Amino acid sequence: PSLSAGNFATVYNLFSLAIACLLFTSLYLVVSQRQVAKQYRNAVIVSATVCAIAAYHYFRIFNNFEDSYPPGQTIDSAHQLSNIEFNEGYRYVDWFLTVPLLLLETVAVLALGRAASKKLLFKLIPASALMIALGYPGEITNEVVPRLVWGTLSTIPFLYLLYVLFVELSKSLERQPEEVKHTIKMLRIALVGLWGVYPIAYLFPILGGDFFGGEGGFVLKQAGYSIADILAKAAYGLAIYKVARVKSRLED
Amino acid sequence: PSLSAGNFATVYNLFSLAIACLLFTSLYLVVSQRQVAKQYRNAVIVSATVCAIAAYHYFRIFNNFEDSYPPGQTIDSAHQLSNIEFNEGYRYVDWFLTVPLLLLETVAVLALGRAASKKLLFKLIPASALMIALGYPGEITNEVVPRLVWGTLSTIPFLYLLYVLFVELSKSLERQPEEVKHTIKMLRIALVGLWGVYPIAYLFPILGGDFFGGEGGFVLKQAGYSIADILAKAAYGLAIYKVARVKSRLED
Ligand SMILES: CC1=C(/C=C/C(C)=C/C=C/C(C)=C/C=O)C(C)(C)CCC1
Ligand SMILES: CC1=C(/C=C/C(C)=C/C=C/C(C)=C/C=O)C(C)(C)CCC1
Repeated sequence: PSLSAGNFATVYNLFSLAIACLLFTSLYLVVSQRQVAKQYRNAVIVSATVCAIAAYHYFRIFNNFEDSYPPGQTIDSAHQLSNIEFNEGYRYVDWFLTVPLLLLETVAVLALGRAASKKLLFKLIPASALMIALGYPGEITNEVVPRLVWGTLSTIPFLYLLYVLFVELSKSLERQPEEVKHTIKMLRIALVGLWGVYPIAYLFPILGGDFFGGEGGFVLKQAGYSIADILAKAAYGLAIYKVARVKSRLED
Repeated sequence: PSLSAGNFATVYNLFSLAIACLLFTSLYLVVSQRQVAKQYRNAVIVSATVCAIAAYHYFRIFNNFEDSYPPGQTIDSAHQLSNIEFNEGYRYVDWFLTVPLLLLETVAVLALGRAASKKLLFKLIPASALMIALGYPGEITNEVVPRLVWGTLSTIPFLYLLYVLFVELSKSLERQPEEVKHTIKMLRIALVGLWGVYPIAYLFPILGGDFFGGEGGFVLKQAGYSIADILAKAAYGLAIYKVARVKSRLED
């Protein structure tokens, strides 16, 4: 497989954009931690950690991408896949660490009380680990049937997870102050809307045809995962920070 | 295309100057955040973030420049463009992130009140995103007509943005303490004067002739963008910090 110069540049610039968004959101949140009250500080620090872990993985992905698709003879030539694999493992390792932490920061900012938080995480975290573990074998295969089978298996814990989160976020809404209700409603929509991008991006390469079966599927999948990562980690982390700040101000 | 040894060194040193100014302004502002009152701290942290994002991009630009224009046979030889493109995408990704944040820090330091700030940013941020998105296709083409067309389209949101900012900065002047009026007037001039450098630098390569059509256009464009970035981000961030400090002292 190969990538045209334009497609290479698009993916390359998106990876660099992801690094910039994730790295500097992480630093921004660390530097801003004292803007929130003590009881919300852990939620903000965990958000910063999620973004930092992801920034690390995007540095790896960026370098790996340069090695896998080295430049051709001229600036306009296509980039041919080299003898170095483009390793999707980085993403799955990243998700394996960041998805549980994202669940943790969400539950932390709701301030549901110790027992209720624990019970909730006890459902959510194993489901998320299962979702990612089942998705990986499907991601690295080039065949359609196993990709669909593993994808479907992975979707079972995914739907369970979304269901539990949605219900719990909705239930917790009653106990949240008026000023943050709107933001928490947005978080709820963001979770379903953004997390839903991942399984769709996963499917792009098997939609087939000249476009999706070739470079188009690869480019769209990378774009989907990268933009979803920026929004589900950096933008989401900033929203968590906002909720924490407003709640800190109100409880002052 | 190629660059003479002298032109290469000029651009190279300018990129390093930009890294130094942006990186250390960022660190200075982070380290100084506790010098300003709580309500202005976010403006200072956002200024630091803008400079950090830009420093990251100048590191990338610097390395990319070295790869695109490798040294010739001898110290005095021209640097020939290699098979690696000099990627102007970095600048546009940078602006896409930093211009909205510069608008945010400007509005934050004025302390206009929550509703008014939100309304203002709701006009400014989409206009800035549109300006940058429309400029990019023109930047990466080598042809004169599309460069002019995209540049003109990008100028429409640019003028709107400057107009709104200028009017709002002027309006807010009445409510600002005497001690910072002068600095805010300077910010107002800086915005128009510095941001106006970008569309001019954009035009250099198409002025044509032996000078602008060749290396001169490239060198002047890079110099224009880099110097404007240093002033519009680092010097501007320091001015914001100064306003925040004076206001903090007065409100103490
Ligand atoms: C359902 C499904 C998937 C879901 C992945 C998700 C939902 C990932 C979320 C990642 C996040 C939120 C990362 C940000 O930190 C896979 C594994 C692609 C495989 C196909 C089926
Ligand atoms: C009008 C115009 C442009 C304006 C660019 C501007 C105004 C960029 C400002 C960047 C800043 C302020 C960065 C600092 O953080 C482009 C895109 C060159 C394209 C040609 C037309």
